[in-house]
Amino acid sequence: MSHMMDATLKEKYPAKAHCRRVAKFLTDQGKPRDGILYLEAQKTQMVEDDDQAIQFRQRRYFFYLSGCKLPDAYLIYSIPLDKLTLFIPPIDPDEVIWSGLPESREEALQKYNVDEVKYTNEVDAALAAYGPSQSTTVYAIPEQVSEHISLLPFKSTNLDSLRTAIDECRVIKDSYEVALIRKANQISTLAHIEAQKVARHATNEEQLYGAFIGTCISNGAHEQAYHSICATGTSCATLHYVRNDQPLRDRLNVLMDAGAEYDCYCADITRTFPLSGTFTSESQTTYDIVKEMQEVAFGMLHANVQWEDVHAETHRIAIKGLVKAGILVGDEKELFDSRVSVAFYPHGLGHYLGMDTHDTGGHANYADEDSMFKYLRVRGKVPAGAVITVEPGVYFCRFIIEPVLENPKMSKYINKEVLERYWDVGGVRIEDDVLITEDGYDNLTDTPKL
Amino acid sequence: MSHMMDATLKEKYPAKAHCRRVAKFLTDQGKPRDGILYLEAQKTQMVEDDDQAIQFRQRRYFFYLSGCKLPDAYLIYSIPLDKLTLFIPPIDPDEVIWSGLPESREEALQKYNVDEVKYTNEVDAALAAYGPSQSTTVYAIPEQVSEHISLLPFKSTNLDSLRTAIDECRVIKDSYEVALIRKANQISTLAHIEAQKVARHATNEEQLYGAFIGTCISNGAHEQAYHSICATGTSCATLHYVRNDQPLRDRLNVLMDAGAEYDCYCADITRTFPLSGTFTSESQTTYDIVKEMQEVAFGMLHANVQWEDVHAETHRIAIKGLVKAGILVGDEKELFDSRVSVAFYPHGLGHYLGMDTHDTGGHANYADEDSMFKYLRVRGKVPAGAVITVEPGVYFCRFIIEPVLENPKMSKYINKEVLERYWDVGGVRIEDDVLITEDGYDNLTDTPKL
Repeated sequence: MSHMMDATLKEKYPAKAHCRRVAKFLTDQGKPRDGILYLEAQKTQMVEDDDQAIQFRQRRYFFYLSGCKLPDAYLIYSIPLDKLTLFIPPIDPDEVIWSGLPESREEALQKYNVDEVKYTNEVDAALAAYGPSQSTTVYAIPEQVSEHISLLPFKSTNLDSLRTAIDECRVIKDSYEVALIRKANQISTLAHIEAQKVARHATNEEQLYGAFIGTCISNGAHEQAYHSICATGTSCATLHYVRNDQPLRDRLNVLMDAGAEYDCYCADITRTFPLSGTFTSESQTTYDIVKEMQEVAFGMLHANVQWEDVHAETHRIAIKGLVKAGILVGDEKELFDSRVSVAFYPHGLGHYLGMDTHDTGGHANYADEDSMFKYLRVRGKVPAGAVITVEPGVYFCRFIIEPVLENPKMSKYINKEVLERYWDVGGVRIEDDVLITEDGYDNLTDTPKL
Repeated sequence: MSHMMDATLKEKYPAKAHCRRVAKFLTDQGKPRDGILYLEAQKTQMVEDDDQAIQFRQRRYFFYLSGCKLPDAYLIYSIPLDKLTLFIPPIDPDEVIWSGLPESREEALQKYNVDEVKYTNEVDAALAAYGPSQSTTVYAIPEQVSEHISLLPFKSTNLDSLRTAIDECRVIKDSYEVALIRKANQISTLAHIEAQKVARHATNEEQLYGAFIGTCISNGAHEQAYHSICATGTSCATLHYVRNDQPLRDRLNVLMDAGAEYDCYCADITRTFPLSGTFTSESQTTYDIVKEMQEVAFGMLHANVQWEDVHAETHRIAIKGLVKAGILVGDEKELFDSRVSVAFYPHGLGHYLGMDTHDTGGHANYADEDSMFKYLRVRGKVPAGAVITVEPGVYFCRFIIEPVLENPKMSKYINKEVLERYWDVGGVRIEDDVLITEDGYDNLTDTPKL
C-alpha cells in the first residue's frame, strides 16, 4: 500500500481532471458550456499591527483546480478549449535578495498539471481575450474576486454555481487524493505512536502535544489539519478541549485527537489509552463499548450506505453496552427512542475528510429537531470514493449529563450510583479515516489500537 | 536568575502600571486628563470556507493594558479614576457543552491586575456611564473599534494618540516583561539544544525544525514568536528562508533562527554550527568574524547608546575580518565608506524585542539612501530598559554579491578567487536578546555558543 501510495504521489496532482469534473457538473445542470472557470489563490496577509505574514493556508477551491500552493496566484480554465492556465507572481528582484528565487514559469509548468503558466500581471489581458469572442460566461466564487479584476468582458458572470460544483465534486476522491490522505495518516501515525511513548513518563499534557507536532514536522508534515486535542482525565469529556497544558498526576486516560495535513490533505485520528498502561475496569468497559460501536459501523460500510442508519446503529450498540454496564436501565428500544444515549454520545459518527477536516458535501442539518441527528455532519447516502471518519465515542460529561439527570423523563433511564463510578473515565473516542468502496471500505488509518 | 524570574512570574502581569504609564505619556503631551482608554481584544476569526477558528493571536495593545489573552474581550481605563475594567465574554451554555466552562468573572478578577470585571454585553452601558458627566475624551485605536460600539457619549474621540503612546511606552520593559522574555529564551534554549543534538544524525532540515517546535511545546511555549529559519548549506545565505525541508547531504553548516513565544512575549535567537561537528577553515573564519562583531557590539552597550554607532562599528569589524581573510582588498576606511560590506552584511544589527518580534518604537527609516542604515530597525539612542537583539551576520549570497561584482566601483574591493572558496559557507549569524542597563547590558539568551 505504502509503495503504491509513493508511486502515485510521484505523479502530478490531477488538477486538469478536477477541472473537467467540475465543468461536467456545471454543464450537466444545463449551465453554459462556453464558459471559463476563474479562481484566485489565497492572498498573502499580514498579522495585524505587525510586519510578519499570517501562516499561509491555500484556498481549497484554488488548490483543487491547480495543485498549486503559491499565494497570490490565479487560474483560468476554459471549458470549450479544455485549457488550464496558471498565473504565478512575477519575480520581484528586491524580494529575491531576502527570500531567494521563486518558482519560475518553466518550473511551474513542469510541476503542475496545467497547460500554460503566465505571470499574474497578465490575468486581466487573459480574461479580456477570453471575453465575448470565445466565452459568454465566467464562473467565479463570490468575495473571491479581487477588486482590480474585471469580469466585464463576459456577457454573463455566474457567481452562484462554482462553489457548489466544486463542493460536490470534492466528495468523491480520486486515487491521488486518497494517496495524499493516506500519507497524512501515515505521518500522523508516527506522531501518535511517539506521543503514546512519551505518555509513559510525561508529567503534563503538553509533552504529548509537543511530541505529536514535532514528529509530524520531522516527517514532512509542517501543518496540522486542526488544533490537536490532547486531553487527560475528565477533560477527555470536553469535545473541543484546546488547552493541552494540564498536569497528568492522578489522571486515568488520555484522549488524543490529532492529525497532520500533507499537501493540503488531512488526517483525523483519535486514540484513547490509559496513562498507567492498564485501563481501570470502568475505562475498559467504556473502551470496549466504543470499540464495538466502531466495528459494527465498519461492518455496515459499502457504496451508498445511508449514513443515518450507520449512526443510529452505533447508538444501539452504545445503549446495549451501557445497559450491560448498568449505567442505563430499561428496554433497549425504549432507550433508543428516548434519545437518552445522546447524553453519552452527543456528536455524529463521522464527517467527510479531504482538504478540509470537515470536508465539503456533507449536507448536515443543524436545524434537525431530532437530537440524535442534529450534529451528524453527513446526511444521506455515502458514495464509493468518499473518505469519511468513523469516530464513535462515549463520554461522561457533567455539563451534558447533569441537566439530563434533572429531567425525570430521562433520569429514570440512568442508574446514578453506577454512573458515579464513571466520571473519572472522562470519555473514550476511537477514530479512523476510511475510503468507501463498492463492497465495503478501506481503512486509511494504520495507527495501532488497543 | 531563573529563581528570580519564576518568582516574578508568579505575580500578576502589571496591566495597571502600563495603563498609568500610557496615561502619563498622553497627558505629558498636553492631551486631556479627563479621558478613558478604550481597547478591544482580537476577535475570534474563522478560516475562510471552513468551520475552524484561525489560530488566535491576542492584540498586543490589548494585552499590554490587561494581561488578558481571551478573545472578544474589551477594556476601559479611566485616567481620572485610575480604574481599569475588563469585559469578558459571558457564559454561553451551548458552548459549555462542547468546550467546558470559560473563565468566570471571579476567576478573571483573581487572575488579572484589574479593578473590575464585567461581561462584554455591558460595554456600551459602561461607555455611556463614562460619557460627558465624567470624561470628555475617549482614546481609541482606529479600525480597532467594533461597529456596534458607540463612542458618541464623549465630547471628543481621539484616534490619533493612543497607538503611538502605547508603542513608545512598550520600548522600556519592566521587570515582569523582562522575566517573560527571559522565560521565552529559556524554553527556546532547550529547543535549540535539542535541534543541535538531532542535527548529528538528521538527514533533512525538517528534523531540526520538528525538534525545535516539539521541544518548545513540551516545555510550555505552544506558540512561536516567528516562523523558524532552519537553513543549511548555501540556504544559510537566504535571510528569509522558510522552506525548512531540504536534505542535508554534503552541506556544511546549519543556521537556525528560531524563538518561542511565552504569554505574548518573544525570544529571537540564532545559532550557526557545522553539521559535521567541525567547521571548515572558511566557515571558522566567517564564524570568528561574526563572533567578534557581536562581542564588540556587546562592549559598546549602555543606556542611551547611539544604535547607528554600534551598527557601524560591527561593519568595521566585518571589514577588518574580511580583509584579513583576503575577501576584501583595500584600505579599511575606504572600504567602509564604499559600503561594500553591505553586500556581505545587508541587514541591521538588531531590533527591539517584546510582544512583537520586531517590537514597536524603533523608528526605522527604510527611505534612508545610505544602504548601511536603510534596514536598521532601531534608530537613535537606546534607553535603559529596552530589550534589543544583537545579531550580526556575514553571508555569501549570490543574489546580493554577484550584482556588486558587476559594478567596477565596488568589484575592485573584492578578491573573486578567495570569495570563490566561501560560497559553500552560506552565511553565519549569531543572535542574542539583551536588556540595556545603565552601565551595560544583561544577556537574556543562555543558548550555548561555539
